[in-house]
Amino acid sequence: MIVVGRSATIRDVASGPHEADRRRRSLDVRLRGFADRVSVERAQAWVDQHAARLAPVDVSVEEALVRVLAAPLAAREDHPPIARAREDGYAARSADTVGASTYNPVTLRLCSPSGLVGSGAAALVAAGAAVPAGADAIVGFDAAQRAGPELEVIAAVAEGAGIERRGQQVHAGAPLGVDGRPLRAHDVAFLASLRLERVAVVGRPRASLVVAGAKPAAGRAASDAHGPMLRAVVQRDGGVLEPSGAGADLRIAILRAASEPRPDLVIVTGRTGTGPDDDAPLALADAGELPIHGVALRPGGSVAMGVASEVPVFSLPGDPLACLLAYELFAGRLVRGLGGRAPGLPHRTLVAELTRKIVSSVGSMDVCQVRLVAGRAEPLGVLESGGLAAAARADGFVIVPAPLEGYAPGALVTVHTY
Amino acid sequence: MIVVGRSATIRDVASGPHEADRRRRSLDVRLRGFADRVSVERAQAWVDQHAARLAPVDVSVEEALVRVLAAPLAAREDHPPIARAREDGYAARSADTVGASTYNPVTLRLCSPSGLVGSGAAALVAAGAAVPAGADAIVGFDAAQRAGPELEVIAAVAEGAGIERRGQQVHAGAPLGVDGRPLRAHDVAFLASLRLERVAVVGRPRASLVVAGAKPAAGRAASDAHGPMLRAVVQRDGGVLEPSGAGADLRIAILRAASEPRPDLVIVTGRTGTGPDDDAPLALADAGELPIHGVALRPGGSVAMGVASEVPVFSLPGDPLACLLAYELFAGRLVRGLGGRAPGLPHRTLVAELTRKIVSSVGSMDVCQVRLVAGRAEPLGVLESGGLAAAARADGFVIVPAPLEGYAPGALVTVHTY
Repeated sequence: MIVVGRSATIRDVASGPHEADRRRRSLDVRLRGFADRVSVERAQAWVDQHAARLAPVDVSVEEALVRVLAAPLAAREDHPPIARAREDGYAARSADTVGASTYNPVTLRLCSPSGLVGSGAAALVAAGAAVPAGADAIVGFDAAQRAGPELEVIAAVAEGAGIERRGQQVHAGAPLGVDGRPLRAHDVAFLASLRLERVAVVGRPRASLVVAGAKPAAGRAASDAHGPMLRAVVQRDGGVLEPSGAGADLRIAILRAASEPRPDLVIVTGRTGTGPDDDAPLALADAGELPIHGVALRPGGSVAMGVASEVPVFSLPGDPLACLLAYELFAGRLVRGLGGRAPGLPHRTLVAELTRKIVSSVGSMDVCQVRLVAGRAEPLGVLESGGLAAAARADGFVIVPAPLEGYAPGALVTVHTY
Repeated sequence: MIVVGRSATIRDVASGPHEADRRRRSLDVRLRGFADRVSVERAQAWVDQHAARLAPVDVSVEEALVRVLAAPLAAREDHPPIARAREDGYAARSADTVGASTYNPVTLRLCSPSGLVGSGAAALVAAGAAVPAGADAIVGFDAAQRAGPELEVIAAVAEGAGIERRGQQVHAGAPLGVDGRPLRAHDVAFLASLRLERVAVVGRPRASLVVAGAKPAAGRAASDAHGPMLRAVVQRDGGVLEPSGAGADLRIAILRAASEPRPDLVIVTGRTGTGPDDDAPLALADAGELPIHGVALRPGGSVAMGVASEVPVFSLPGDPLACLLAYELFAGRLVRGLGGRAPGLPHRTLVAELTRKIVSSVGSMDVCQVRLVAGRAEPLGVLESGGLAAAARADGFVIVPAPLEGYAPGALVTVHTY
């Protein structure tokens, strides 16, 4: 475990170049391996320290789709603001229809819907229209038939039938119940139906991407696999990912990505491991602070995180599946928290029985891709061994917590579904 | 039930204006109500007749996100194309490490990774790099320590340890397993890692929107609630919704929306009921054919569908919640089918116990909004009565099939979650 204080840079300066060199060497895991790794929970606690909600912004109701309200909203007035017809038909007094039947039709005289519907009268109304004064029910077309200036009613209607009362959907001052989560299509329609025009939503997290690049290795995944993948998951989490240049000097690239326009986080992909070219975490240490490098997680355990120019920086592994998982657990957690969403994994979960055992190592959180077959979860490959191919065939993944050495066949496990 | 043949327009002309007038009157439900309604299943069968997959288009791998592959893809070569290191470390011969321990370190001489790793030798490799010839395992940094030009190995490694074999993820010619569903973020990364650049995907369905407008009624939902809502769900279903003008004459507006650039479907919102101003379905009949108007569904039962200029047209109710449901069951079914997705409702489902009974009417499919409370489903309002406010508070909805009169408290129901 490599943990230095948040004020490491300042102390480095205070304690002179010799001490700084010693500290830098202690951060360097290249050709040595990780002496220790922090737990996923501890790394997430570090993330949560930086996840204060962004400031609210005003947007149109239409733009509020998938945004999170900055504060709970209450209805400004009753909705509907008046009693209105819920169906097309004739507004009448229910008492007038008592006893009406096919054999004993009740005859009402037709009047204007803009006036009073008196005793023995009825007025044509369309669904959604105001219920005329005097009327207390709507007689549908299946129960009424026009005969010249009169109406024959062949079925009794109860008081309130076919009418949506004033405030029936929501009363003035009542909470609308759409806060605390991304607004859905029909939530937006609901807000529009309340004649809201602009609403305050939590700001949209902006992430800046530095591609540290693949190591110079044969048969390696094309490095542009990361950009589209990360852009998609950042967008799913309510944020936006913009590319920033890399260049020869990673320290400068990180500082540039963290500067104006200042993003809410920086994501660096690649070069996080213990090989000779794995210089991204050290570049982050040189640009600011590197409190965490190495997490007890498979795949994705070489992830690093720190701060440069007061912006949180996530140095994600180059292997695409490890990169994705480290995003989901750490960088994505920050994106979701900043944007006002629940910070935990965003995948829907279900509980399923394992078809085969999952073998895991005690002491690290292991993630296993699974396919759902007839409602049961079938492990695909052994952890990293299947790579992206296994993830592409998978319906989701199972997390084996650090204290466990796996799951037995038939065990009930929680599947995070894609 | 109002069903006319698909060649109704032609027959109308053949049988003269008098017959056409008679037929048009038979289609007019205004001030009369629906004489009969088709079942949801039958209306969906009509939709499915028009849901032939769109022609494939070539897109870049990055653009393929959430698109559906036009055909299953197979690997063109083994992936990885060579055996490669799965971790950073030293490539060596496993036989050389037999018996190695802290008390009995084995000394190997360091050699170049570009040459042959012979007996007694080891070469530094980074994760992802080709395994040098001669080596059959990777010794991690935790098991090896450099000592000048030599390496001290303090733990035995098994043959194949730390190595990803050629073709381990997928063999040449094997199916990739990512067809038949929208491509996910890591599917796209997988395709990119296979060095694919362009792929053939099913075309993107294009829908054209005609807002027939609200009836001239007080307290009615603002009509612009529909646009954002429908745009969001069409996009979720893989399509794109573009507005088309309305104008005074709905028949002309429908024909214009169905003409060049020819969309794959037209959606008309509002004016589908039995009130005096509900002229959208008749406008569709005048513009082409109206095989279906009125479905045994609540809410949303006044939905109409037909064809104008050979383009399927969906006339959705003006009430936003009815509009949304009619979209999900019919217009959305077409969008999903045209785009190569599963045509059924796209919501994730779960089974939950009902906290209270749901009362429904026999003979129509009724949809009830529910909230999930401690894993149980709590009905919100009685069908239409809660309107959008209930849907906004809901976590999903329960479908009561037409033959049932509801569900008892404690019944296990399928919840379609938002």
